[in-house]
Amino acid sequence: MNTNYLISSVSGQKLYDTVKDLPIIDYHCHLSPKEIFEDKLFDNIGEMWLGGDHYKWRLMRASGVDEEYVTGSASWKDKFIKYAESIEFAAGNPLYYWTKMELEQFFGVTEQLTAANAEEIWEKANAVICEKKLSPRKLILDSKVEFIATTDDICDDLSWHAKIKDDPTFAPVVTPSFRCDNLLLIRKPDYADYVKKLSGVVGFEIQSMDDLEKAICQRLDFFKANGCIFTDVGIEFFPDHIGTKEEADQVFKAALKGEAVCNEAYYGFLGYLDVFLGCEYKKRGLTMQMHLAVKRNANSVLAAKLGADVGVDCVGDTISGNALISILDAINVKTGLPKTILYTLNPSMATQLSSIAGCFSNVILGAAWWFCDHVRGNKEQIRVIAETTTLNTFLGMLTDSRSFLSYARHDFFRRLLCDVVGEWVDRGEFTAEAAEKVVAGCCYGNVKKIVG
Amino acid sequence: MNTNYLISSVSGQKLYDTVKDLPIIDYHCHLSPKEIFEDKLFDNIGEMWLGGDHYKWRLMRASGVDEEYVTGSASWKDKFIKYAESIEFAAGNPLYYWTKMELEQFFGVTEQLTAANAEEIWEKANAVICEKKLSPRKLILDSKVEFIATTDDICDDLSWHAKIKDDPTFAPVVTPSFRCDNLLLIRKPDYADYVKKLSGVVGFEIQSMDDLEKAICQRLDFFKANGCIFTDVGIEFFPDHIGTKEEADQVFKAALKGEAVCNEAYYGFLGYLDVFLGCEYKKRGLTMQMHLAVKRNANSVLAAKLGADVGVDCVGDTISGNALISILDAINVKTGLPKTILYTLNPSMATQLSSIAGCFSNVILGAAWWFCDHVRGNKEQIRVIAETTTLNTFLGMLTDSRSFLSYARHDFFRRLLCDVVGEWVDRGEFTAEAAEKVVAGCCYGNVKKIVG
Amino acid sequence: MNTNYLISSVSGQKLYDTVKDLPIIDYHCHLSPKEIFEDKLFDNIGEMWLGGDHYKWRLMRASGVDEEYVTGSASWKDKFIKYAESIEFAAGNPLYYWTKMELEQFFGVTEQLTAANAEEIWEKANAVICEKKLSPRKLILDSKVEFIATTDDICDDLSWHAKIKDDPTFAPVVTPSFRCDNLLLIRKPDYADYVKKLSGVVGFEIQSMDDLEKAICQRLDFFKANGCIFTDVGIEFFPDHIGTKEEADQVFKAALKGEAVCNEAYYGFLGYLDVFLGCEYKKRGLTMQMHLAVKRNANSVLAAKLGADVGVDCVGDTISGNALISILDAINVKTGLPKTILYTLNPSMATQLSSIAGCFSNVILGAAWWFCDHVRGNKEQIRVIAETTTLNTFLGMLTDSRSFLSYARHDFFRRLLCDVVGEWVDRGEFTAEAAEKVVAGCCYGNVKKIVG
Repeated sequence: MNTNYLISSVSGQKLYDTVKDLPIIDYHCHLSPKEIFEDKLFDNIGEMWLGGDHYKWRLMRASGVDEEYVTGSASWKDKFIKYAESIEFAAGNPLYYWTKMELEQFFGVTEQLTAANAEEIWEKANAVICEKKLSPRKLILDSKVEFIATTDDICDDLSWHAKIKDDPTFAPVVTPSFRCDNLLLIRKPDYADYVKKLSGVVGFEIQSMDDLEKAICQRLDFFKANGCIFTDVGIEFFPDHIGTKEEADQVFKAALKGEAVCNEAYYGFLGYLDVFLGCEYKKRGLTMQMHLAVKRNANSVLAAKLGADVGVDCVGDTISGNALISILDAINVKTGLPKTILYTLNPSMATQLSSIAGCFSNVILGAAWWFCDHVRGNKEQIRVIAETTTLNTFLGMLTDSRSFLSYARHDFFRRLLCDVVGEWVDRGEFTAEAAEKVVAGCCYGNVKKIVG
Repeated sequence: MNTNYLISSVSGQKLYDTVKDLPIIDYHCHLSPKEIFEDKLFDNIGEMWLGGDHYKWRLMRASGVDEEYVTGSASWKDKFIKYAESIEFAAGNPLYYWTKMELEQFFGVTEQLTAANAEEIWEKANAVICEKKLSPRKLILDSKVEFIATTDDICDDLSWHAKIKDDPTFAPVVTPSFRCDNLLLIRKPDYADYVKKLSGVVGFEIQSMDDLEKAICQRLDFFKANGCIFTDVGIEFFPDHIGTKEEADQVFKAALKGEAVCNEAYYGFLGYLDVFLGCEYKKRGLTMQMHLAVKRNANSVLAAKLGADVGVDCVGDTISGNALISILDAINVKTGLPKTILYTLNPSMATQLSSIAGCFSNVILGAAWWFCDHVRGNKEQIRVIAETTTLNTFLGMLTDSRSFLSYARHDFFRRLLCDVVGEWVDRGEFTAEAAEKVVAGCCYGNVKKIVG
Repeated sequence: MNTNYLISSVSGQKLYDTVKDLPIIDYHCHLSPKEIFEDKLFDNIGEMWLGGDHYKWRLMRASGVDEEYVTGSASWKDKFIKYAESIEFAAGNPLYYWTKMELEQFFGVTEQLTAANAEEIWEKANAVICEKKLSPRKLILDSKVEFIATTDDICDDLSWHAKIKDDPTFAPVVTPSFRCDNLLLIRKPDYADYVKKLSGVVGFEIQSMDDLEKAICQRLDFFKANGCIFTDVGIEFFPDHIGTKEEADQVFKAALKGEAVCNEAYYGFLGYLDVFLGCEYKKRGLTMQMHLAVKRNANSVLAAKLGADVGVDCVGDTISGNALISILDAINVKTGLPKTILYTLNPSMATQLSSIAGCFSNVILGAAWWFCDHVRGNKEQIRVIAETTTLNTFLGMLTDSRSFLSYARHDFFRRLLCDVVGEWVDRGEFTAEAAEKVVAGCCYGNVKKIVG
């Protein structure tokens, strides 16, 4: 890939040369450890790209493509061609860049995908899959990935992680992350079933907050023993107050019985549990991630038909900074804060969030997330962090992806980071020496300190 | 006008050459169909510019001009000179650009208007009005406008539209748009009078929601029969829940009696009616516009003295994305969504709004609105749409204006669009071929598909 | 300092030459009038920089520096070296620019401060302090400051201001500003003590709203007699309604008794008093400043240990525009608005705030505040003002600082302003003549009209 691609600043191009070959630490993604272990050869680029990528599904729908070719029964080839017709005109969308970069990095295709060349690229890409024997592990190794943190339900037995760890032929470290969304969504109709499942996993019946806390601690110890370094939450609700344990206990028991839980009660429960979780993370040296301001399943018709994660999530309303501060401060008062990474889907919160992070020495802003992960969005996030705190502790990119081709996003980020920092150098506002150290930290060094 | 004006990118200048002469489809404006039909010669540039343009009134007030010269009894010439003194220093304000572009496009004046040349330009512009016989139709035809959608109260008899349609000497299509603000503002003191007026129009007394719905359907059919393609709403309230028909009926009856309606009740009514309207639009194939996050008549002293639309409206508080999703989703569940265009006056909502639009295949973001319609605001809107969905379905510019000179805003937009897209091409991030197709769609083709 | 520093536009560099030597009017700062009067020589750059600057404390904490070197008992030299280690990599942070500019302007140091040269710069700067006899007055005079408005509690006896005024050897005007935060924070545990103190100052016991209003008026007259031109408020609460005087009276009496005051009651009280204060300011020709959307003491652990203003304040939640309009409109209805300057810490409110200001002829946006005062933030504020109203009445920069070295921020602002305006000129979007007048007004002329 051309060194100049996405990098206008001369100093940025030089900086990029210093980081482009650094290994990748992908500290938050949604890859399947099973797929990593089984390492099956991929079949075709259509399935690789369109089998589970809701980013692409959204773009196709917005471009007027019929659902038949999005999530329907059309062939992978036909879906691929419809995607080509959509992406051809989608300049500015991150998919436009990623499509180009993935085609070039993994398949040696240097043209932009269009309706006209879609058939030819389909053939060429599929030929490359065969020739190079593209599989999950092959893509991971070719991308120089040395660390992967997957996202795992707290009930998960982590058996695939164990198998990967036990396989001496595969060097990259693949760790589970403790994702507690299902634990917190007590108003879902199947919540009691979920708690029953958790009861089965921990080996005792969970009927109260005491039980639940015990179960959480047991699962945290289990995850930690299996290499877990990061925790995560990404639900659409955020508490506006912190309930007492007694209140949380009542709410939990009501939820188990399937009773309706009002917002007031739910937020008290959430507040209590968020603080409990934060303290337990701190005790175990885990890093806490919070994904804020997301709205799930906005289109109920499509969600009912296709399920979750099908491209009808969107940017949520802003979270009150006061509410967030209450939670962080309460954890800080009790045990001190674990290392904490804050993400927001709503860009209008970014500056506030960074200024809140700056009030607690252990809290930082994460990379630009999802609808903010385009060219400007990544640059904006980098600048906001620099302007309101320091770029020198930024952990840099993560794929947040379900696709093994998404490692191209790290290259995307490195280019954008070097362009921003290089611009300062070009303008005489930053020294080249300090710039080199900062970009190296953001691309590898800073997160390396966490994953060890 | 210089091809380079407002266009820095080389590719942008080339792109602009391909769209600058396309006809104009002005799918949302506040022009008077009466004035279009009567087609009176204009008298002087002072009245043309300052007779009803609250943008200019605001700028003059902010510049320290006495109300006497804004909306008071000073002569048009004196008002024009005071405006010149204000605009001379208002770089960055969209008026600064529009003033220059209108002077050049319609009056052949190439200098920037200043206090020093105001008198000379006053004479020259007025001479041009006489020479060229400038009138509404002359300006419409000279601007290559082929379609106009005005904004009309639902009680309007559309007689001026009928007369324009019946006039074989005037080719442009002028259609009414169904604007339901007065229907929804049930807490205004004269609401019962408004309903009485509507009763008169539909020919039966409106005393219940059943009656109201019947009246709405009748007016929708009438508007549709008179060429209506677009509907619109632009009130400052947005519902946070959807009332039942029974609740809405009670609230409506209370409003008719002049009883106080609390927020809770009002929002339930609004929610119910918004969903009803959306479904009825869908059934008739109308395109629904929603103008969100506006605050009206912030300065009550000036509003009491001068009435509505006098330059004391402003950006409203953000609308909850959750609330908007509830309405859109409810319509979608019932009948499917009509083609929907969302506008926001609060720029901090733009990314969220675009991401919400992307959850429903029929919903898109509109052009940058009002306080967002400056150079950066237009570019920002274009970029947000591109980054979070696809620019390939964007409907592009509308004047939203009461002035026949405002067609210059289409040229303004085309330049900015080409600059943004051309920058991508210049940087090797977009192909010139695809870019050409995208800008043609945004300037004409996409909205042409709607207006036919 | 290089004329090109921070100025890319050619016209901007020319504009900068026309304003760089203008005197400074620092119309809002937190300097100590006592320190100005006493005029003690500074001891070392460590104390000058790190004795009270919570901006630097935040950066050091975010960079991982132990509190011992931030606010702890480490030596000034060791603290200075730790700061050097932090700032070296903090590109983009305003401190990075200010550190460079202050070192060059006041100490003749042209390198960027780094860990490597920290010791050398420490020696050199301290030598300069001795040689040049750097003291508060020396820095004020060297910076060509002709007017300073400090920030003073309304109980202050203003004796230091009187002494400065009586000193014929010191030409700059130093006026107090009427800062009423302590008056409004009725839920603080020591509020009754504060009112007792105020009672002592005014010479009668304050037991009711009548008394309080009388006391306020007396203090306003006293401040006015002592040269006060500006008032200010910067608490984290903003009223959502306006209570009656009777309600405010009840709330005030409850607060005096130490009773709990709920939000509803508190906001009613605040609303009442904000309107009262605005009207009294208007009657006296004072200029009202409102600092909006700040959150104080987010980290309660550090606040409890170190007190207020220690670097754990942050950007607050957005203030409702509707609520702000209610207050402004109520004052306008009663007495007309005093000249009013609105600041916001939450940048997502800026456009809305500017559009609200534009509804009232006496209200304008202030300079970019605190977490928004970086390079992009200053430019953004300038552009927002230009885009939504006119730059021609902007009052320009203020230091908002506790440090006598912060006058470099005026140079920082002038460079950024000239760069923005010069860019318009470079692109043929603004005339050089008008630009020159606009920047002169924003750097000096506009605020000069207020301070006389």
